[in-house]
Amino acid sequence: MKKTYLLAPGPTPIPESVTAALSGPLIHHRTPAFQAILDDVRAGLRHIFQTRQDVLLLSTSGTGGMEAALTNLFSPSDEVIYINAGKFGERWGKIAKAYGLTPIEVKVPNGETLEIRQLEEKIKQHPAVKAVLFQASETSTGVKLPTQEICKVTKAANILSVCDAITACGVFDLPMDEWGIDVLITGSQKALMIPPGLAMIALSEKAWAAVEKATLPRFYFDLLREKKAAAKSTTAWTPPISLIQGLQESLRMIKEEGLHNVFKRHELLARATRAGVQALGLEIFARKPSPALTAVKVPSGIKDGKLIPKTMRDKYGVTIAGGQDELEGKIFRLSHFGYADRFDVTTALSALELTLHDLGHPVEFGKGVGAALRTFSEG
Amino acid sequence: MKKTYLLAPGPTPIPESVTAALSGPLIHHRTPAFQAILDDVRAGLRHIFQTRQDVLLLSTSGTGGMEAALTNLFSPSDEVIYINAGKFGERWGKIAKAYGLTPIEVKVPNGETLEIRQLEEKIKQHPAVKAVLFQASETSTGVKLPTQEICKVTKAANILSVCDAITACGVFDLPMDEWGIDVLITGSQKALMIPPGLAMIALSEKAWAAVEKATLPRFYFDLLREKKAAAKSTTAWTPPISLIQGLQESLRMIKEEGLHNVFKRHELLARATRAGVQALGLEIFARKPSPALTAVKVPSGIKDGKLIPKTMRDKYGVTIAGGQDELEGKIFRLSHFGYADRFDVTTALSALELTLHDLGHPVEFGKGVGAALRTFSEG
Repeated sequence: MKKTYLLAPGPTPIPESVTAALSGPLIHHRTPAFQAILDDVRAGLRHIFQTRQDVLLLSTSGTGGMEAALTNLFSPSDEVIYINAGKFGERWGKIAKAYGLTPIEVKVPNGETLEIRQLEEKIKQHPAVKAVLFQASETSTGVKLPTQEICKVTKAANILSVCDAITACGVFDLPMDEWGIDVLITGSQKALMIPPGLAMIALSEKAWAAVEKATLPRFYFDLLREKKAAAKSTTAWTPPISLIQGLQESLRMIKEEGLHNVFKRHELLARATRAGVQALGLEIFARKPSPALTAVKVPSGIKDGKLIPKTMRDKYGVTIAGGQDELEGKIFRLSHFGYADRFDVTTALSALELTLHDLGHPVEFGKGVGAALRTFSEG
Repeated sequence: MKKTYLLAPGPTPIPESVTAALSGPLIHHRTPAFQAILDDVRAGLRHIFQTRQDVLLLSTSGTGGMEAALTNLFSPSDEVIYINAGKFGERWGKIAKAYGLTPIEVKVPNGETLEIRQLEEKIKQHPAVKAVLFQASETSTGVKLPTQEICKVTKAANILSVCDAITACGVFDLPMDEWGIDVLITGSQKALMIPPGLAMIALSEKAWAAVEKATLPRFYFDLLREKKAAAKSTTAWTPPISLIQGLQESLRMIKEEGLHNVFKRHELLARATRAGVQALGLEIFARKPSPALTAVKVPSGIKDGKLIPKTMRDKYGVTIAGGQDELEGKIFRLSHFGYADRFDVTTALSALELTLHDLGHPVEFGKGVGAALRTFSEG
């Protein structure tokens, strides 16, 4: 017997009652029964997004949600600033380029976060810029970006803020309306605790005004068509029915726990993980770490850093994430959001202690776990 | 207690063992365990598509698969012929227009099928045309289109055949390589017996050559990127993991039954349904009916045709499909493919007999069901 644990920053584990809802009889999507589920789910999502706007559901991965934002908001050659603090920031630039926009990069070194002056200066240099594209949490480096500050700057410049919140929405506080986030995007397999295949997006009134003028081509991801469908309690195309049936249950769970209690839980799990990792003498990679995940530098004594996630998965059944692209072998990433509690943290640290020992790195067993337990005990 | 029956042309019912597979522990998509599932699923799909080409998996509804075909094959202003035999044929024209192509319509009246001379003449009139876009089975009218004949014509004209086989692939024989179908697209919630959220697409070598030259913008639906990922047993973006886990089981079931036995079963269920409907004195809407579904004209005595599907669903728990757009209230549609057997047909006809009686239409109870049973008995 080998029990397995999913402790990667997406897909995250599915709660048992959500699995049950996902496995319920499929309800035809053009029926009053499914429309009632959709309306309930949309209300739950407005609560998570902290917005009065419609939250639209798209049958796609998160990347499709990012693409939908760009093709609905802009016209060919439009200038957009994107904050490249890692792999997902870089993706904004790639999508913008693929659609003939003029992407302007604000480069943030891996592991660092944005200095807000960098952004202010870039906007001054490019007075025609239409928007700033960024991640609230850059999953590739474990960095949290200053969403509220970015939105203050975009508001002052009267341009749009487009926020990929795929590992942020439902993880930590990100009040869309209050902070003036113009576009907020998330995905299903993260804090919402269902399998991948569903992206969600909400637009401010200012963003909807931009949609009216935008001429980039779109059909499947036509948000105006989705908005009209939402007003009739339906979707433009066939939705991923089973995921939406599961989402109704996961949203109910979040509401029952209380959204701000969820945020507090994630923050505590993140602090305990960081304390555990540091007690083992390892270094946190992100200078401003996201509460979603902890990226850790591979200690210099371990030559092949890829062996850490590989050993944890193959020998101990614990799936975490390694580094991607140029960070491969240099960092590993422990996730602690969604359906995660204190014993997921102690499991991750226990497997990490065993793995480090296996790879010849000196470990005082229990030191990492002990530090995490101390954090929990102090609350 | 109210048992419910899903007898609409998608989503179709999910077999119990597929539900179990869908509900299994989520496997992280960047692991050898999931790569093995993906490779197995792709092999199973090549068998269903009857092709040696890669079958690519996209996290989207079928409409996204149609869009992917157009944005990867063509460049702005390219002329494409689309066969408009109903709502889904019309959609080809809409997507083409949204992306700045020059769509040329071959209009087929509702319920009729394509006369191949219509297509030949249209190609002669437009010598620069690049492709013919069509449905193998037009779900809105229940009509089967002559795929093999269309492909003979496109081959002779040296242009591409792009086939939406969303309610055709796995329903009836559609050998991609043998017939020279250049692009074949299907969706998950039809003959493949899993929930919606996954589209599949395969391209011939001729179609891949067109991709190299095509300049329409694409990123999320970039098929070349997906092809490269497939060569490494992965996907470009996060795939709908749970659906793919379910698909592995449904493909196993299809292989166990035998693909051509599946086709024979669908053909028999279709014949029995048509016999039952006609024995009740009702008229089949499609002149060349698809084995996937039977579209039936609402009898003239029933004034509000929408009451037929509504009564079947709300009073008897049997979800069928009504007519869409201008066919609303004029036809209703009974599905008989996927996880469907003879008793799904007798259930549909039984509920129909009760419903017609409820709506004041004269019915000799058992006459429709009896005709279906006679068909089954004769095999």
